[in-house]
Amino acid sequence: MWRATVLTLYPAMFPGPLGHALAGRALGRAWSLEARDIRAHAADRHGTVDDAPAGGGPGMVLRADVLAAALDAAGDDGRPRVLLTPRGRPLTQARVREFAAGGGVTLVCGRFEGVDERIVASRGLEEIAVGDVVLSGGEAAAMLLLDACVRLLPGVMGDAASGDAESFETPLIEHPHYTRPREFEGMAIPPELVGGDHAAVARWRRRASLAATRARRPDLWAKYVASTTGGVDKRRESE
Amino acid sequence: MWRATVLTLYPAMFPGPLGHALAGRALGRAWSLEARDIRAHAADRHGTVDDAPAGGGPGMVLRADVLAAALDAAGDDGRPRVLLTPRGRPLTQARVREFAAGGGVTLVCGRFEGVDERIVASRGLEEIAVGDVVLSGGEAAAMLLLDACVRLLPGVMGDAASGDAESFETPLIEHPHYTRPREFEGMAIPPELVGGDHAAVARWRRRASLAATRARRPDLWAKYVASTTGGVDKRRESE
Repeated sequence: MWRATVLTLYPAMFPGPLGHALAGRALGRAWSLEARDIRAHAADRHGTVDDAPAGGGPGMVLRADVLAAALDAAGDDGRPRVLLTPRGRPLTQARVREFAAGGGVTLVCGRFEGVDERIVASRGLEEIAVGDVVLSGGEAAAMLLLDACVRLLPGVMGDAASGDAESFETPLIEHPHYTRPREFEGMAIPPELVGGDHAAVARWRRRASLAATRARRPDLWAKYVASTTGGVDKRRESE
Repeated sequence: MWRATVLTLYPAMFPGPLGHALAGRALGRAWSLEARDIRAHAADRHGTVDDAPAGGGPGMVLRADVLAAALDAAGDDGRPRVLLTPRGRPLTQARVREFAAGGGVTLVCGRFEGVDERIVASRGLEEIAVGDVVLSGGEAAAMLLLDACVRLLPGVMGDAASGDAESFETPLIEHPHYTRPREFEGMAIPPELVGGDHAAVARWRRRASLAATRARRPDLWAKYVASTTGGVDKRRESE
């Protein structure tokens, strides 16, 4: 069973949304979730886990010794240990696939102004950011990461083929989707998708995927162009 | 009061983690949250909300007519209406600040293979992606977006100054943090941060912030360089 361990100051937040729907149905079957309270390893009997930042400034910083005690108590079985922080490298679907293919993850949720940097080196934490935004803590990012992993675990998605063409599973974002009714408020489904011509459907989807990537994700588009043409923008492909 | 309306197939997921900690303490005071069940607007008495994708392929697509009924029932008071989807433009801290400065947001959580594209045009949905990953649904992304917004609402953060120097509030990611104890497992706090010289602290933080951005976020680094030098990489500044 794939194991998720979460270190947080708010263990009652878990499983939260992960206890519902796809992830919730698989919880205890395809994966396990343990939320551990960082405050159980506080530096004193008052439950202190943070202190003022060295060098001054607003906010409070989570202490390295407190986090070290919490991590050490959780044990180390070789699973990747991740610190969710806006200072991290962005989470990618490729990394999610690697996490899902392994035995699980240990996630450390920061709070306050940040965590003492020395815990990162001393316990080999991988710093990951989810979205270029600042959160009140790492918990929402941890849930998002776990949701992305759990859906990839064996037996979790009903239709195993679903997902292969999805955004970020290829270097492109996905084509748009349509379903019944055939006409909605005067808008028809594109005729290429309803003609029964499989090659025409594939062509339409490919073009739509290229066009959306180019319009919305210049960063992915640049990577795609570099990977397919050695850097020459073959504009005709998306026209 | 800042208003969040969430359209989801799993209203019981909310408030979930947003009912705890900073966001939870502000809930009902600085912001309100209404989770509306998309299935209440199903196409038939069996609760059908999805159908097979036009053109074939795996998975199911959320119907435009069902989502239209759910959105129309929620009303339109001018708040931005967001569809959380991997096809969207990436969420940024700048957009979060705009959301937080307004009256609130309406968030539509996709599920299954995707949603019928025609709902986007017909109801003017803004498509936003959170992280370059595929989720089982938009709910975890919606919670992350709301967490990022709520912490910026007036009176929610205890220390109003906290956050101004944080990652993504400037074009750079934030410098590392340190706090007591002064020595942790043989590692000292950098001497620049404990000498009491405010200018030295500011210099150290600036350099650390530049170095981290350059090492971890070539995308942000390129933007920063372009914004400050007209494109010339002033390498010495980070050395």
